Amino acid sequence: MTLSKPDKNQVFLGTFIHSKSLGELEYLHNTAVCVDASGKIVAIETNCNQQKAVETLYARLGWSLDNVSVTLTRDGRQFFFPGFVDTHVHAPQYPNIGIFGKSTLLDWLNTYTFPMEASLSSIPKARRVYTQCIRQTLAHGTTTAAYYATIDVDATNLLADLCYSMGQRAFIGRVCMDHLGPDYYIDESADQALAATRATIEHIRRLDSNFELVSPILTPRFAPACSVETMRGLSELQKQTQLPMQTHISENMDEIELVKKIFPNSKSYADVYDTYGILNEKMILAHAIHLTEEEADLIAERNSKVAHCPVSNSALSSGVARVRWLLDKGIQVGLGTDMSGGYSPSILEAARHAKLVSNHLVMPGGQLDNLWQEERDKAKLSVDEVLYLATRGGAQVVGLADKIGAFEVGMQWDAQLIDLNAVPAEIAEDDFTTHGNVDIFGWEKWDERIAKWVFNGDSRNTKKVWVRGRLVHQQT
Amino acid sequence: MTLSKPDKNQVFLGTFIHSKSLGELEYLHNTAVCVDASGKIVAIETNCNQQKAVETLYARLGWSLDNVSVTLTRDGRQFFFPGFVDTHVHAPQYPNIGIFGKSTLLDWLNTYTFPMEASLSSIPKARRVYTQCIRQTLAHGTTTAAYYATIDVDATNLLADLCYSMGQRAFIGRVCMDHLGPDYYIDESADQALAATRATIEHIRRLDSNFELVSPILTPRFAPACSVETMRGLSELQKQTQLPMQTHISENMDEIELVKKIFPNSKSYADVYDTYGILNEKMILAHAIHLTEEEADLIAERNSKVAHCPVSNSALSSGVARVRWLLDKGIQVGLGTDMSGGYSPSILEAARHAKLVSNHLVMPGGQLDNLWQEERDKAKLSVDEVLYLATRGGAQVVGLADKIGAFEVGMQWDAQLIDLNAVPAEIAEDDFTTHGNVDIFGWEKWDERIAKWVFNGDSRNTKKVWVRGRLVHQQT
Repeated sequence: MTLSKPDKNQVFLGTFIHSKSLGELEYLHNTAVCVDASGKIVAIETNCNQQKAVETLYARLGWSLDNVSVTLTRDGRQFFFPGFVDTHVHAPQYPNIGIFGKSTLLDWLNTYTFPMEASLSSIPKARRVYTQCIRQTLAHGTTTAAYYATIDVDATNLLADLCYSMGQRAFIGRVCMDHLGPDYYIDESADQALAATRATIEHIRRLDSNFELVSPILTPRFAPACSVETMRGLSELQKQTQLPMQTHISENMDEIELVKKIFPNSKSYADVYDTYGILNEKMILAHAIHLTEEEADLIAERNSKVAHCPVSNSALSSGVARVRWLLDKGIQVGLGTDMSGGYSPSILEAARHAKLVSNHLVMPGGQLDNLWQEERDKAKLSVDEVLYLATRGGAQVVGLADKIGAFEVGMQWDAQLIDLNAVPAEIAEDDFTTHGNVDIFGWEKWDERIAKWVFNGDSRNTKKVWVRGRLVHQQT
Repeated sequence: MTLSKPDKNQVFLGTFIHSKSLGELEYLHNTAVCVDASGKIVAIETNCNQQKAVETLYARLGWSLDNVSVTLTRDGRQFFFPGFVDTHVHAPQYPNIGIFGKSTLLDWLNTYTFPMEASLSSIPKARRVYTQCIRQTLAHGTTTAAYYATIDVDATNLLADLCYSMGQRAFIGRVCMDHLGPDYYIDESADQALAATRATIEHIRRLDSNFELVSPILTPRFAPACSVETMRGLSELQKQTQLPMQTHISENMDEIELVKKIFPNSKSYADVYDTYGILNEKMILAHAIHLTEEEADLIAERNSKVAHCPVSNSALSSGVARVRWLLDKGIQVGLGTDMSGGYSPSILEAARHAKLVSNHLVMPGGQLDNLWQEERDKAKLSVDEVLYLATRGGAQVVGLADKIGAFEVGMQWDAQLIDLNAVPAEIAEDDFTTHGNVDIFGWEKWDERIAKWVFNGDSRNTKKVWVRGRLVHQQT
């Protein structure tokens, strides 16, 4: 399959669904969204159809009929939805998804993760793994991903090249870890970690000079794996480059103990990052499960962001992040697959689990079970809310809230076409064709169709995916 | 597609994986399984290939070459697995899967469930819903299902007819509820509930006289919805018919309070069922989340079974059943989708969530977080264990442990052919074909392939499904 380049103006017609606010999806039917050849949304018109679009919009935009491609939704079963943002994902761990046994964070790192990451210094292996990772995440509607790569510069640069050529919007993090790692997989020194980081930045600058599709992201692995010099050096580098940064925080109780032991003079895990100058509005913190009240307040004050990774947190028995509590403090939250701590390449599955683990917090025996009924209901996330986290929330987390995550004039066309299965009125008993797991009988209201998609949808429902107007995936 | 009838002898060759015991899967490679025209496994030969099968097995079995059909697995990516057993599923609620909002059991029943169930007294609607439910569960490898239908006899009988013609092994429960239901959906009296139950039994006896594929199952909805007379009457009917029975127990805290209020003289929820003569070895109890020590001991003593429904329990915020604790008491446990309390038609997804919720029990803030490390690790279920629950465990629960759930001579060929995606060595960047979510790179050990399937598998991986030797689903 050759994917089309966005060399034409495009009009999308039909049903569009996106987040208006945290608690509310907006349903736009009979709507036209016009996207110019650069991939930018230049007009949105409700109460529109193809004829009206031609007569009024094309004229207003100065478009001629022969240079516009048109994509329609099928009534009642198809809709356009903003592309998903994966705010935390380790591309080199892709082959390990589903493989974690009964391990928890620290033994999981040594048993499964470090050996796999180290092995990707083989460029042919890295090419195979990264290509399949990008392909699968695109197929699941992930139009933007904040990737951790490995310590290997060449393989990290390859990940950037592949995202660029396959068309996925991406942040590429060359991983810095000069402390406590295994002998076979560790940065020699802070200087070396910083030099390697700069090498990747320069590579990406040559690839995509303004970082419009692919951007570097500074990536201290997590406090236990970084010397003070590395954190200070990355802080300096950030001041020079204004690049975003990503790390982990407060995922696992043993990890937190380890941080206390390594940094005995710090008040908390969050305070370590704050002390060394990297807790700021450009920081994406993955997990944030066991934060104290003071840490969450500090994170809110610094305007750092949180990548919530519920699938991973349940798989590695890490705990349940209190998303409502973070949101109530004004912290911006997105979703991460955290492959391969998380087993699924799908942000839709992360959204589903964000809902489920918020239920776990308040169910009998859960840690917030002692709250009043009203507070318990509030702690649970709704379908609309988890879809917000998957799109607009994620866009905020990666610093692109003005560009992606919704359908607004001036934003980029990063979108997916979702198709649900319409169950026929008469079904032959011996016809065993199925079209995915989302069966629509026809009487469902739109919010019920969306709920069905959130709980049973998978990549079979993701028919087409675009980034910056370019078609980057379609079902064959 | 016309599905083949098992009018021939069949040989299956290649890799077979099934549960040897709770904690151990057995991997049989280069193996032949011979199935006679009645659907029974008549020989299993390891270290075998097609030529050897012809030369030795056919001769021993008296089979001639021209009356045997052969099915092979593809090396390293395909295997035969026993069909799944869904020990708790409400067929009429199928259209509601994914639709539950923030509700919990009692309001969920009134808001979503009773209206849908009542509406299936329309036979055309029931035909459409039941056909699609059976089709989807077969497509997910469910070869045996213990169904709740509705109070409507005609629609319940239709469900039995459809299972019989589509080839799914099934228990069909006409639901008894003569207490506390809504005006529009309730049995008028115990006599009427019992008469309707008998009508369905007679219908199924005419359909499948020995209940070999489709069997009635006595179905008091749950204690709050049943008068004492109905429970006593069903107990009598069970003594006459020796039929199995199914109900719910201890799913939700408000439900438990309600039971206390209705049965003030009973010692516990389990004691209600025991008092009225229905807590015995033929009883399937769904959920069993909040049982007391005494209740679990009583259930173990009566040898009643438990249908664990983790997807439902998380979705409706019911709680987390302590499966290890139940198993340690000697209680037999299977898995249920509990559609539409559960949102997924897949027992594989139920197995995945059985693993995840067992993690939730012992993670920080979980109800068993206070245990020692060793006990915590033990409370977590392994991949092998959840697959046991999905097959052999389920077979025990529905009383068919000698017939289904594994590959043994004398058992029925209720099986599925699973296919994983082999990632090519060289991937073209612009080829966006995907084949499901389970990507095998080739270096994975077999237990890792199985783990990948458990966590990312879906009906795309289920290529063919057989019940009693009959091909009842294949991907087209």
